[in-house]
Amino acid sequence: MRDVASEGDARGIQIQRVGVRDLALPIMVREKSGRLAHLLGTFDASVELPHTERGTHMSRFVSILSRWSKKAVSAVEMEQMVREMAQAFDAPAVHLSLSFRYFLEKCTPATGQLCQTDYVCRFDARINQGEYNFELGVRVPIMTVCPCSKEISDEGAHSQRALLTVNLRALPGVIIWLEDLIPLLEKQGSCDLYPLLKRADEKWVTETAFAHPKFVEDVVRDTVLALRGVAGVVWFSAECEAQESIHNHVAYAYAESE
Amino acid sequence: MRDVASEGDARGIQIQRVGVRDLALPIMVREKSGRLAHLLGTFDASVELPHTERGTHMSRFVSILSRWSKKAVSAVEMEQMVREMAQAFDAPAVHLSLSFRYFLEKCTPATGQLCQTDYVCRFDARINQGEYNFELGVRVPIMTVCPCSKEISDEGAHSQRALLTVNLRALPGVIIWLEDLIPLLEKQGSCDLYPLLKRADEKWVTETAFAHPKFVEDVVRDTVLALRGVAGVVWFSAECEAQESIHNHVAYAYAESE
Amino acid sequence: MRDVASEGDARGIQIQRVGVRDLALPIMVREKSGRLAHLLGTFDASVELPHTERGTHMSRFVSILSRWSKKAVSAVEMEQMVREMAQAFDAPAVHLSLSFRYFLEKCTPATGQLCQTDYVCRFDARINQGEYNFELGVRVPIMTVCPCSKEISDEGAHSQRALLTVNLRALPGVIIWLEDLIPLLEKQGSCDLYPLLKRADEKWVTETAFAHPKFVEDVVRDTVLALRGVAGVVWFSAECEAQESIHNHVAYAYAESE
Amino acid sequence: MRDVASEGDARGIQIQRVGVRDLALPIMVREKSGRLAHLLGTFDASVELPHTERGTHMSRFVSILSRWSKKAVSAVEMEQMVREMAQAFDAPAVHLSLSFRYFLEKCTPATGQLCQTDYVCRFDARINQGEYNFELGVRVPIMTVCPCSKEISDEGAHSQRALLTVNLRALPGVIIWLEDLIPLLEKQGSCDLYPLLKRADEKWVTETAFAHPKFVEDVVRDTVLALRGVAGVVWFSAECEAQESIHNHVAYAYAESE
Repeated sequence: MRDVASEGDARGIQIQRVGVRDLALPIMVREKSGRLAHLLGTFDASVELPHTERGTHMSRFVSILSRWSKKAVSAVEMEQMVREMAQAFDAPAVHLSLSFRYFLEKCTPATGQLCQTDYVCRFDARINQGEYNFELGVRVPIMTVCPCSKEISDEGAHSQRALLTVNLRALPGVIIWLEDLIPLLEKQGSCDLYPLLKRADEKWVTETAFAHPKFVEDVVRDTVLALRGVAGVVWFSAECEAQESIHNHVAYAYAESE
Repeated sequence: MRDVASEGDARGIQIQRVGVRDLALPIMVREKSGRLAHLLGTFDASVELPHTERGTHMSRFVSILSRWSKKAVSAVEMEQMVREMAQAFDAPAVHLSLSFRYFLEKCTPATGQLCQTDYVCRFDARINQGEYNFELGVRVPIMTVCPCSKEISDEGAHSQRALLTVNLRALPGVIIWLEDLIPLLEKQGSCDLYPLLKRADEKWVTETAFAHPKFVEDVVRDTVLALRGVAGVVWFSAECEAQESIHNHVAYAYAESE
Repeated sequence: MRDVASEGDARGIQIQRVGVRDLALPIMVREKSGRLAHLLGTFDASVELPHTERGTHMSRFVSILSRWSKKAVSAVEMEQMVREMAQAFDAPAVHLSLSFRYFLEKCTPATGQLCQTDYVCRFDARINQGEYNFELGVRVPIMTVCPCSKEISDEGAHSQRALLTVNLRALPGVIIWLEDLIPLLEKQGSCDLYPLLKRADEKWVTETAFAHPKFVEDVVRDTVLALRGVAGVVWFSAECEAQESIHNHVAYAYAESE
Repeated sequence: MRDVASEGDARGIQIQRVGVRDLALPIMVREKSGRLAHLLGTFDASVELPHTERGTHMSRFVSILSRWSKKAVSAVEMEQMVREMAQAFDAPAVHLSLSFRYFLEKCTPATGQLCQTDYVCRFDARINQGEYNFELGVRVPIMTVCPCSKEISDEGAHSQRALLTVNLRALPGVIIWLEDLIPLLEKQGSCDLYPLLKRADEKWVTETAFAHPKFVEDVVRDTVLALRGVAGVVWFSAECEAQESIHNHVAYAYAESE
């Protein structure tokens, strides 16, 4: 059976990324505790295609990722996956991104109810000419109380849910655990969120948030300061998007480390 | 050229709705003032297919709607459109739904800045055995301040953006204008939203909202009372979804008129 | 601490549904084999609120669902959950809907590669005045080849991905397994989909689909016939939405059992 | 009234982008013909915030954009808008992105029916230290027929809807019209799409597509060749995402000019 994808190509154009996107698979992510979290993963995998080849082997991505879906995944395994892909495709550059909703347990602040919150996370690994890079991404919902609204109003201040999105890269060998990063980021809003709040908890959250009003600019700057303090981080970006309760649009701020 | 869709069908199964969805067209909606608003419309159009026919004429929907995209549309024209479709398809039942983002001008509450806010609206028309029905839908963003949070906290109260979605049917011949309905619904939250707020306006919005704390249950009940007062309305539903600033999920309430 | 939600209400308006939506939790679904699938669940839970009460206890939903997130869920447990909610809220009517992406293993048609495909599923349970109702929903991606295009063209025929969505209710005590329902629905398109296809498999899929051209109307009618043959089913709806490759809109058909 | 946003900041952190996102406004885009298209615009506007200032003036974005929503917009006016923003905010860097669904009329290939198709477009303007940059983005739906499927199958070949997304920058003073760019991009698939197709048109589209099978890699390479031929273009990227009819995931290819 003729394989037209494997044939040569005369157009002389290298393609930076060829691959599959929105591939859903069950995955297991290794928690800091060593236990495995069973999660829903969505993959985006691509390779660089030399100008001499017409097409890539799309089914190979799915074979490799399907095999990995049976094993534990962490920053360490992401490197193994992209190296395996680089070899399987004989490709100079590979990019693999895995998105998943991660859960952490936490206790409510006043009554100590144990509950689980969810965070959208991303493991992003790439290899280029043998050089490996890993980026960790996480989106943490927080609450923000507006400092201007509080300052100028006789009573109250508008608040809203906001999303704090951080991407970061660390020194080789340094693992930044989601279990450490997420609580650090949750502290950068006016208050963090809980799926479950008894009345005493709701009082605590309301008063804590009101005592710590923050613009999106404040959240981003405080996040920058916090991330500068994490050992081993060599690059990061931080974005805060507030779903303004007084507007029908979003207010946001974005900063990157130099 | 053989027309396989027009051939008979032996399976003996009538299909309630066959048609097209997510068809985008520029439209003109007649405002209460008589002027025309140029908007982006998305259509969902279907007909009932008798058990004797294999397929419908999908291109006919697009022909009819394309012609209408050059003319003004209001509740009145929706009836003409579905009647034209019923005839063109010789169909006993037709359903046509048109969604669009509508804009209203309003002034900010303290400094009187003129600004425009957007609302997702829907004209939904159906004809069945000659009987015509029209439903108007609108989704209005509002702000809610939590009464519990206000009551139990020493200071402040959490607030959030919420969506108040109303669908309604009126007596034949009665037109409910979006220009009248939307401001009425905006009054049912703790405060309405503005794209633009100077500091004096933000103070007004914050204090007004704080003085009118409402659960989603309160918003829905007050909306029910307000809609009972609109002459000519024979049926309605009201749903309020609050994007809770203290949780990562939505709180909602839904009620229908009896 | 005063509980304003528990106070009475003088507006005299009963609310059909009050609750939480978009609550994400890890869940375990019992497979037909008896094994547990670890999945990401999204809950929508509500109760009817009598006209005499101002608000419901939103945190109670989260408490109950969090506890259940540690246990296996199937149609059987959904009944236990809604009955527990009815009691906890002392509510005459409860509605609980759980959506999740489910995975089934299957072999590719020619080379027999084992692979996993994902399907969006929904368990929907409600209780009203003691009467329990359960609805199973599933969305199955399929391929459709256009019969008209095949008939009129010298060569080829356009094809596209389509979504076949089925909701059904069965007799009390009858369990319809996703493991049985999904493969049955996959047979109603021109061909079913596979995440992984070697060239011999792709040949099989292309030729099988081309030999079985189907309009959305055909898919829905064949699905109706197939579901009529499933013992214990007392009601169903079937919708096929084709993401037409020749248009920028969707073609669809919808039918319900009488 | 104290203005806390205008106060100084001691954290010493510059923020690259502070602004508003998802702001919907009616807009008028100047067509190549000189006529104005009335469309729905969505804005994302931001400025760089010096380390010395605590917050930006969020309402100023909305004031400026609201005023512009009454006037015609094209690449030329985008420059005026960002320059006006740079001045109003006294900001060294401004970024303004405007997304909208644009419509072009075209005739069906065999029977010559006039119809309108929609394309998601983006005007992206930024100014940095006085230097202006403009990027045009467009997403064009096309049809792709799989060359491998055609080659190995006795009959037929799977096809699907695909999205070809192009971003480009041109020499100062050169305007690339959507009216010229879109038809050029539509030619890079196996065939272009039409909202309306009579049977003779559907035959033409099916046979044309079947005669021009293309992988996503082919579409991207042919797009690269086509864009190299557009006078004045100095940079571009091209991505093709095919919503594979045989898989439940996307296949894609991405290339940038060097």
